Amino acid sequence: MDVIITGGAGFLGKKLAAKLLERGHLSIGGFEPRPINRITLADITPATGLPADHRLQFRQVDITDFRAVQELIVPGTQAIFHLAAIVSADAEENFDLGMSVNFDGTRNILEAARRLGTTPGLVFASSVAVYGGDLPEVGNDELMLTPTTSYGTQKAMCELLVNDYDRKGFINGRAIRLPTIVVRPGKPNKAASTFASSILRDPLAGKTAICPVSADSKMFFLSPRRVINAFIKTMELPSASLGVLKRFTLPGISASIGEMAHTLEKVAGKETADKIQWIPDPHIQKIVSGWMPDYFAQRALGLGFEADENIEEIIRAHIEDEL
Amino acid sequence: MDVIITGGAGFLGKKLAAKLLERGHLSIGGFEPRPINRITLADITPATGLPADHRLQFRQVDITDFRAVQELIVPGTQAIFHLAAIVSADAEENFDLGMSVNFDGTRNILEAARRLGTTPGLVFASSVAVYGGDLPEVGNDELMLTPTTSYGTQKAMCELLVNDYDRKGFINGRAIRLPTIVVRPGKPNKAASTFASSILRDPLAGKTAICPVSADSKMFFLSPRRVINAFIKTMELPSASLGVLKRFTLPGISASIGEMAHTLEKVAGKETADKIQWIPDPHIQKIVSGWMPDYFAQRALGLGFEADENIEEIIRAHIEDEL
Repeated sequence: MDVIITGGAGFLGKKLAAKLLERGHLSIGGFEPRPINRITLADITPATGLPADHRLQFRQVDITDFRAVQELIVPGTQAIFHLAAIVSADAEENFDLGMSVNFDGTRNILEAARRLGTTPGLVFASSVAVYGGDLPEVGNDELMLTPTTSYGTQKAMCELLVNDYDRKGFINGRAIRLPTIVVRPGKPNKAASTFASSILRDPLAGKTAICPVSADSKMFFLSPRRVINAFIKTMELPSASLGVLKRFTLPGISASIGEMAHTLEKVAGKETADKIQWIPDPHIQKIVSGWMPDYFAQRALGLGFEADENIEEIIRAHIEDEL
Repeated sequence: MDVIITGGAGFLGKKLAAKLLERGHLSIGGFEPRPINRITLADITPATGLPADHRLQFRQVDITDFRAVQELIVPGTQAIFHLAAIVSADAEENFDLGMSVNFDGTRNILEAARRLGTTPGLVFASSVAVYGGDLPEVGNDELMLTPTTSYGTQKAMCELLVNDYDRKGFINGRAIRLPTIVVRPGKPNKAASTFASSILRDPLAGKTAICPVSADSKMFFLSPRRVINAFIKTMELPSASLGVLKRFTLPGISASIGEMAHTLEKVAGKETADKIQWIPDPHIQKIVSGWMPDYFAQRALGLGFEADENIEEIIRAHIEDEL
């Protein structure tokens, strides 16, 4: 089968491709697994550092261009992982860009998938940013969609659309809400949460990092390893196991930023942890304080999804995978 | 001020215009009421039976055409009541038409309103069809958005968009979810709920009507009079009174179809009620059984919105207004 990964130049897209190549097969919605013949990474930005594998190709595609999307999602496409997005702070600053990429781009992909007429599998990467405002200490699967950012609004709208495209039989669709992913390799991005990776990644690489929020700020995390497994597991889940709602939140772990710094010291020593510079930024603090610090992901846990054990596991996995 | 009403050829649009003309003034979001200079009814279908009033005009507009919408929503527009929609059964049958009118049309209106740069007031007519699937006997304001129709999906997506346009300061927006409106005058439409009006309206006019659902089927109702008042009250509510969520469900009354027939007999006699022919339609029955039979509209009640007292009041109001 042919697999497409949008946002394919991003670190999650590349990791997902590597994992799928290693596995060599994939099931769509619980049907019999089939060998993967081709994986196409699609992104507006050229991808670098791709593994040499005859099954892997890169295509530069602007998902806001429907014709380009139709040239990407051609007959034979059986699985689409849609990860491409304008991240939170960028979508908030550039409303039209966010609407165009995050909403119209997703709609283009859904529509091109529908026009195949073969009900391809589609996993949409949503976000816990669909929740905002006056939130409980621990989120749960019964919460209303209450986004308080344009990014969260666009993700919530897309979740609804994925659900309807699935219900109509246009796609075999699912949307999963990702916790904050740590540790992101590479460079900081425009997500308001990017510091959570920087304060672990940069000190471990011998560089200083700025932490703009207080040590008692709590966030909800998942590691790259776990989220890659979750993308694949989501694609493979039988449709019936999801019922009417084809969307759910992945399990993660809740930790304070102070706990992260403390664990970094435990794993890599005081000198490393001291490379975190605590310089408060009220703007970032306000955004982070508006996020849900914890979530009881009952549905996903019932479906067999797993969170990381603790922050130490996340840091050690990063060292193993990236350093 | 200039007021625009989309869906202006529909009976609610025309009644809303008549009420606003009678009032002569309107407040936007709690600001001081100002005289209404002009009301523009916009619709793709020509409006008939409009009152002669120099303040009232009709414009034929296809809301899926952004340029046409921009020519409608011109500087000076301070209030927009957006009622235009493809109704439930039609949107389910014609997915692309529903997306185009219900979603893209709404987005065009929001975007044209934003480009005024003057934060006009906007009331969006949503629907309890944003709820579906496994619903409680009595709905409440904490329920998730779980549409199980394309119509409900499109309305839910628009609610989210209205909220974000409001949050960004592009509009002073609000979305209200309408119960099933009875008694609709005129002819049946393509809404799956249209029979609920027919079985009262047609016998009262001396004609037979078909009831496709069982007598014990319960639905959630509001009268045209009450919903017209609710549109105006929603426009006038101070933004702060709504908090972060600029969407809520209007109060209504829950009644069984048998109770409606019984009340019709009480008000208009056995001969009239006997004009209802009970001919089950499993397709309509299934749709109606999926709807929420009752809803506790706590937020709206707290804001001073009111439901009808009972079905008898609704029938008597129809006789007074239409016969």
